[in-house]
Amino acid sequence: MIFENGRVSDVKIAYIGGGSRGWAWGLMADLALAEDLSGQVNLYDIDREAAQHNEEIGNNINGGNTQWRYKAVDSLKEALTGANFVVISILPGTFDEMESDVHTPEKFGIYQSVGDTFGPGGLVRALRCIPMFEEIALAVKEFCPEAWVINYTNPMTLSVAALYRAFPEIKAFGCCHEVFGTQKMLASALEEFAGIEGVEREEIKINVLAVNHFTWITKAQYKGMDVFPIYRQFAEKYKDIGNDTRKIAGGLKCFQNYNKVKIDLFLRYGVMAAAGDRHLAEFCPGDWYLKSPEQVDEWMFGLTPVSWRKADLKDRLESSMKFRTGEDTIKLRPTGEEGVRQIRAILGLEDLCTNVNMPNRGQIPNLPLGAVVETNAVFTSDSVTPSFAGSVPKSIMPLVAPVVTEQEMVLEAAFCRDLDMAFSAFATDPLVRLSLSDTRKLFDEMIANTSNYLGMYRK
Amino acid sequence: MIFENGRVSDVKIAYIGGGSRGWAWGLMADLALAEDLSGQVNLYDIDREAAQHNEEIGNNINGGNTQWRYKAVDSLKEALTGANFVVISILPGTFDEMESDVHTPEKFGIYQSVGDTFGPGGLVRALRCIPMFEEIALAVKEFCPEAWVINYTNPMTLSVAALYRAFPEIKAFGCCHEVFGTQKMLASALEEFAGIEGVEREEIKINVLAVNHFTWITKAQYKGMDVFPIYRQFAEKYKDIGNDTRKIAGGLKCFQNYNKVKIDLFLRYGVMAAAGDRHLAEFCPGDWYLKSPEQVDEWMFGLTPVSWRKADLKDRLESSMKFRTGEDTIKLRPTGEEGVRQIRAILGLEDLCTNVNMPNRGQIPNLPLGAVVETNAVFTSDSVTPSFAGSVPKSIMPLVAPVVTEQEMVLEAAFCRDLDMAFSAFATDPLVRLSLSDTRKLFDEMIANTSNYLGMYRK
Amino acid sequence: MIFENGRVSDVKIAYIGGGSRGWAWGLMADLALAEDLSGQVNLYDIDREAAQHNEEIGNNINGGNTQWRYKAVDSLKEALTGANFVVISILPGTFDEMESDVHTPEKFGIYQSVGDTFGPGGLVRALRCIPMFEEIALAVKEFCPEAWVINYTNPMTLSVAALYRAFPEIKAFGCCHEVFGTQKMLASALEEFAGIEGVEREEIKINVLAVNHFTWITKAQYKGMDVFPIYRQFAEKYKDIGNDTRKIAGGLKCFQNYNKVKIDLFLRYGVMAAAGDRHLAEFCPGDWYLKSPEQVDEWMFGLTPVSWRKADLKDRLESSMKFRTGEDTIKLRPTGEEGVRQIRAILGLEDLCTNVNMPNRGQIPNLPLGAVVETNAVFTSDSVTPSFAGSVPKSIMPLVAPVVTEQEMVLEAAFCRDLDMAFSAFATDPLVRLSLSDTRKLFDEMIANTSNYLGMYRK
Amino acid sequence: MIFENGRVSDVKIAYIGGGSRGWAWGLMADLALAEDLSGQVNLYDIDREAAQHNEEIGNNINGGNTQWRYKAVDSLKEALTGANFVVISILPGTFDEMESDVHTPEKFGIYQSVGDTFGPGGLVRALRCIPMFEEIALAVKEFCPEAWVINYTNPMTLSVAALYRAFPEIKAFGCCHEVFGTQKMLASALEEFAGIEGVEREEIKINVLAVNHFTWITKAQYKGMDVFPIYRQFAEKYKDIGNDTRKIAGGLKCFQNYNKVKIDLFLRYGVMAAAGDRHLAEFCPGDWYLKSPEQVDEWMFGLTPVSWRKADLKDRLESSMKFRTGEDTIKLRPTGEEGVRQIRAILGLEDLCTNVNMPNRGQIPNLPLGAVVETNAVFTSDSVTPSFAGSVPKSIMPLVAPVVTEQEMVLEAAFCRDLDMAFSAFATDPLVRLSLSDTRKLFDEMIANTSNYLGMYRK
Repeated sequence: MIFENGRVSDVKIAYIGGGSRGWAWGLMADLALAEDLSGQVNLYDIDREAAQHNEEIGNNINGGNTQWRYKAVDSLKEALTGANFVVISILPGTFDEMESDVHTPEKFGIYQSVGDTFGPGGLVRALRCIPMFEEIALAVKEFCPEAWVINYTNPMTLSVAALYRAFPEIKAFGCCHEVFGTQKMLASALEEFAGIEGVEREEIKINVLAVNHFTWITKAQYKGMDVFPIYRQFAEKYKDIGNDTRKIAGGLKCFQNYNKVKIDLFLRYGVMAAAGDRHLAEFCPGDWYLKSPEQVDEWMFGLTPVSWRKADLKDRLESSMKFRTGEDTIKLRPTGEEGVRQIRAILGLEDLCTNVNMPNRGQIPNLPLGAVVETNAVFTSDSVTPSFAGSVPKSIMPLVAPVVTEQEMVLEAAFCRDLDMAFSAFATDPLVRLSLSDTRKLFDEMIANTSNYLGMYRK
Repeated sequence: MIFENGRVSDVKIAYIGGGSRGWAWGLMADLALAEDLSGQVNLYDIDREAAQHNEEIGNNINGGNTQWRYKAVDSLKEALTGANFVVISILPGTFDEMESDVHTPEKFGIYQSVGDTFGPGGLVRALRCIPMFEEIALAVKEFCPEAWVINYTNPMTLSVAALYRAFPEIKAFGCCHEVFGTQKMLASALEEFAGIEGVEREEIKINVLAVNHFTWITKAQYKGMDVFPIYRQFAEKYKDIGNDTRKIAGGLKCFQNYNKVKIDLFLRYGVMAAAGDRHLAEFCPGDWYLKSPEQVDEWMFGLTPVSWRKADLKDRLESSMKFRTGEDTIKLRPTGEEGVRQIRAILGLEDLCTNVNMPNRGQIPNLPLGAVVETNAVFTSDSVTPSFAGSVPKSIMPLVAPVVTEQEMVLEAAFCRDLDMAFSAFATDPLVRLSLSDTRKLFDEMIANTSNYLGMYRK
Repeated sequence: MIFENGRVSDVKIAYIGGGSRGWAWGLMADLALAEDLSGQVNLYDIDREAAQHNEEIGNNINGGNTQWRYKAVDSLKEALTGANFVVISILPGTFDEMESDVHTPEKFGIYQSVGDTFGPGGLVRALRCIPMFEEIALAVKEFCPEAWVINYTNPMTLSVAALYRAFPEIKAFGCCHEVFGTQKMLASALEEFAGIEGVEREEIKINVLAVNHFTWITKAQYKGMDVFPIYRQFAEKYKDIGNDTRKIAGGLKCFQNYNKVKIDLFLRYGVMAAAGDRHLAEFCPGDWYLKSPEQVDEWMFGLTPVSWRKADLKDRLESSMKFRTGEDTIKLRPTGEEGVRQIRAILGLEDLCTNVNMPNRGQIPNLPLGAVVETNAVFTSDSVTPSFAGSVPKSIMPLVAPVVTEQEMVLEAAFCRDLDMAFSAFATDPLVRLSLSDTRKLFDEMIANTSNYLGMYRK
Repeated sequence: MIFENGRVSDVKIAYIGGGSRGWAWGLMADLALAEDLSGQVNLYDIDREAAQHNEEIGNNINGGNTQWRYKAVDSLKEALTGANFVVISILPGTFDEMESDVHTPEKFGIYQSVGDTFGPGGLVRALRCIPMFEEIALAVKEFCPEAWVINYTNPMTLSVAALYRAFPEIKAFGCCHEVFGTQKMLASALEEFAGIEGVEREEIKINVLAVNHFTWITKAQYKGMDVFPIYRQFAEKYKDIGNDTRKIAGGLKCFQNYNKVKIDLFLRYGVMAAAGDRHLAEFCPGDWYLKSPEQVDEWMFGLTPVSWRKADLKDRLESSMKFRTGEDTIKLRPTGEEGVRQIRAILGLEDLCTNVNMPNRGQIPNLPLGAVVETNAVFTSDSVTPSFAGSVPKSIMPLVAPVVTEQEMVLEAAFCRDLDMAFSAFATDPLVRLSLSDTRKLFDEMIANTSNYLGMYRK
């Protein structure tokens, strides 16, 4: 990299999962908008053709008039050698495996709104994912040990944890925008209940803690104002009717999010849950929000079927074709993701404080050291430092502690390639409240369905 | 106290709850059998008459030919002044309050086998109990700060925790014999599966951890032999048919204990649960073992109704009368409780290593510091020192962590006299899986039923 | 406070030690330059007249054309009531007491370059200071518990620690500019050895840790460049001849600082010491740098006699007179202190990451929890959050650990008003390597000399 | 091993350093006296002949009428395969290396009374020793991972630490009798000042903590009596004249020990130092007790020259010859060492609570986790469990913390084979208060003198 006149050129980014038809295009836009950066992005994907297509798309941006060169590469080694940053955004398996993760448990009355993070689906997805991240971490160790690694893949917590377990000195963190939505909701509450208009989400200073997608806000301050009393008014008004933040979460019923779960958790515990309802529900006892599709309807959020994702993929393949042919172009507007801002901060171009997922070094004293947690962190030259977030409030600890424990067990099971240990974790999941024998049946079926990706596990 | 020729005379014991018709008599027997001890036992009870009766009974032992003098006293102050040891065995409230603790939740489909430790009943009992222990601790601080305090009252964990919270320098611990039953069961397994006869429970060396009545054994060794494989054989044989340890737990159906819950937990997690099934079941998700009386029958343990306790009390009142008149006498045989051995060890007459309940100082690194936990401890001259027990195994942490957290919340709520905080804890209890509104209804009714003892709480 | 259009008016600042002829004037200048802030500053000082003079001086700033009103007040209560911020900058005792602190140990061959932080002088100063801060903290608790408290007084560590010990919920931190000087030295090294000109100190991103005035830098990064190799070149060149950073430290011999101690410590341990040599030397074994005035000369730093301070005070009294009469005016240029920037950040006007002194909550895992430590922290709306600084490197732990321990003992001793305990700490100080009897003689003499301020201690 | 009728036969012990002419004979005696044990002892030594001689001696015991068979073996592998216990008692290097360890520093005015534990001599000895223990630990891992390993070698702390670092699951502990001497001294104080005769050392119950040879007693209780006030009387009486415990420490001047250092430390800090003065002095700043031979004389302890050890070895070689020829025989009386009692406890034949050296798992909360510390532990069937010892008292923490830190640095340096890191540790040693250049000269000379054993280190 060359630092000159407040600009950094010759930045090398390795994009693992670089054939992505979504995240990749967003990153391309954000990179194109970063005027003080330039360099090369190596696109690596097990789907070589997809990476090739993105090479074309990336190099077409702005009519080819861009400071970045995109290049599809053939191997992790080629992607990583010389990299300053590594971006990981992969699908662990295909949507067929995900279909089993999400829908097989429905046979036993277990419903999942997303199925990629926690619960039985998230767990089995993690079993596929962890060995992949182990491989990536070892390659980073070999080919670019000083590079910064940014993960966007779910399950976020266990993906990042796998990186650190395989290569403890890795400079990695995980990014997630779920918390931003809560900040926006608070901004709208400030408008409605305090008459303050035009608040930017970044102006609402929050203290974030716990684990990704089950993140909680223990303090929220706007200038001189404590936002909690405002949010309580919001919660009381909308607890039954819900608040349609469609602008944030998209208009599809299967993605809908009226924040009723978030509000219910706030009213139970006095702490702000800070992810979308579809994620939050999956961490709670199964009969609270996910007992049946009807109960989900009452709580006014959506179960996202994998069939939707399959259909959506077709649309995106069409977009890809159009981007390649020039029939359409990637819009150069900020995505709202912070990846590029984080890169700029690590390069010393600005300081930034935002939430990330990193191993607990004490930033949350009452969660286990080493567990990957989400808190604020300071980004500055070659440094990402977690801020002290404080303890998980006692009122939510009975919900949070088992989640962290289950995640630790799954990580251990995956590194030991031990499906029996994974089953022990599976049997403790708050969504899985079956008898021992039914639990075993479900687990075995899910494992069988996804066996193509689990060949490294002991029988 | 006078130490002379290997004997200690002039030992002063304060017995809080000294009108007890059960524990008190056992202690009298054990004390009478301790030939190297003598002194005075002050009996204090809010039921002054009951204490008076026990004074007569104690002084009648062995035809009055005993080295102990029993004396009913009028106040905590009188009981404690000059005491070397304080024994606490009280009923927090009456059986009427306990009836509400145990049976009110049944209206909402929540069944409890004991109802004095955890779950909704144990929680409300703790709300009554903690202020009493706070008062006792402050009296100990004032009148006998150097005395050793031995608690037998349930809820054990929170009673001991209340003592330490009110007077952090107190020298207190809690005793429970539940673990002994598991050692005896292991002895019978050694006989059946390894052909080793006559093993004493003390010869099976165990590592004990977690919290009272939800205690677990992570290592069990008999001489050169690891007992875990033996127990696995035992578990496989008896997992469906149960093993009748009636000799241990008493023959009544409502107390029955075929160890099927204990075995099921072992087979799920690979760690030995080490309390009776009636206790263990109450710490697990409600639909595992306590969904309905029928499910309890299948698991072959008993729901103990408070009506039984009321009837039993009548029998014991009759015994009391007989002991006083001399129509019957207390049998001078060891009770199997360790209280007197512990006293002897603290006096320097023997060393002893056994399980006790004390604040966590690091003996269980992955439970919160300060929480009262059960582990082994070394008893020696004026000293009770917890042994390092190691971490709660990950496999059971999802069960144990929420228990400890709930207990911490209840302690905090009781010391703050804050029923709202208590409700937050109540709503997280694994047996209470109701909607928020039903949870509130049940809680309010239970609190109302026991309001005679909750006058100090804020409305 | 009123937040409007990006400005905050009606800010109330209580200045304890508001008669100061130095810090106070600097703060006045920085406040006058903060265009988006306005309000009132209450000046409280046990020297009421000095506060009155500063009231006049403050209100004269800019010809009276300023957004701040200064008001001398009669009591802590009056100063604090309604305060949003509290600034503490006091002299604990007079220069007569300080004269004893610094020079009495010279009779026993113990030399101190500053004598206000650590070593025998700093310890005795702390004994005077801690009860004062205890009183301030209790007043804050009573009159403005939500205010942010900024301390500038030495001994910094124990002043801040006393605030937290007396009122654990206090929102207090301590500021010190010593680290800035090291950043400036690194900037000059970047110019000399890497040819990079014009680097601002804030552009050198550092990780700071340990305790005030014995602070260490474990990472220093300028954009893409690791500054450690540059500093090593600097150190090798200047280790014997010293580097005259007179511009930073002032031209007086008794204040001189050629960074030879700083460099020696870097060459010994590989970690950057980050305070001036006069401070660093006082934390090391006495025969390293402070054995004799001759040795101090060799190391090219200065012993600052208290006579200088007394003479300087006279000059400052003259300045005060001139500021009041208008013969001279306070220069409105930034002082380089960060106090006002921190206030702005806490008010939500900018984010800031800088080093502060706060209790250890885990930001330095291998120092005791609760000990006041210096690390970076994030300042944002109503929040100052320490960043995770990592462990004190093992190589310097043998120097740092005893310092922290001694400080903990002194804090305990002062809160217990126990001079015997203070003596135990005194006897372990690395500058005090006398026989037990000489140590006692010195201690007793120093205590006697400063007894006017130690009336609350037990004999 | 065969457990039968309260006896254990077929016990296999591997003795590393089995050619020892001292410890080995004591162990032989203690084993011969253990009537409920029998088996085989494999003697392994790099001096094969010495092992062979001990084979003869061992098999000659009691005229050959003993339950143990001794066998000299050719390799670690042969020694360890099948072992139930491993005893390690080796000399790391020869007395020539030790001569350099102890006496080279004298050129720079640094005196050492023993030179095998800490200080410059102990440090260099550790550099030789740690790679040897690393090798042993890896062999244990390979050939007898379940065996219990008992170390007697100095430096104790770092030998045990090396075992755990190389094989974290090892079941190892270190034994030392230094504390026993303090118990005996307390027994004599009880006789002199309380008129209590015939107290056995085991009857004085103590709480022990810190590191081997710099161990401290924070509580000492005899039956109902606190021994601290008694010891204070003892200390006041003997602080100047010393108390000749020649019976304990042997009559030679170079070994003499009048407990004046121990008493001085007690009077400074209020905590009982619990090792002999020759050891204690080496952990304190060099000018306290070891400034010069004259100062050592004043404190009435001895500097043990290595020439004495060389001469003594000759005597022991003669004894060896006599034992082999039958001219003399090993006396079958208890040595006072606890090794065989510990073995019996681990075999389940008795419970035992005594002090050992093991990694800190929290038994001393304010020392680093993982550092090897000395505390009490409970020995029972296949289990050695540290007791909670509590924090190192603040008053002695400034002495203890740097010791532990230096030891951690040396361990790290030895495992990294990094002499530069070792030098950093060396430069912080409390006995080494030289200029940086003299420190380097001394270190280089000591390393050169012992280079035969340091071939594995990087230059």
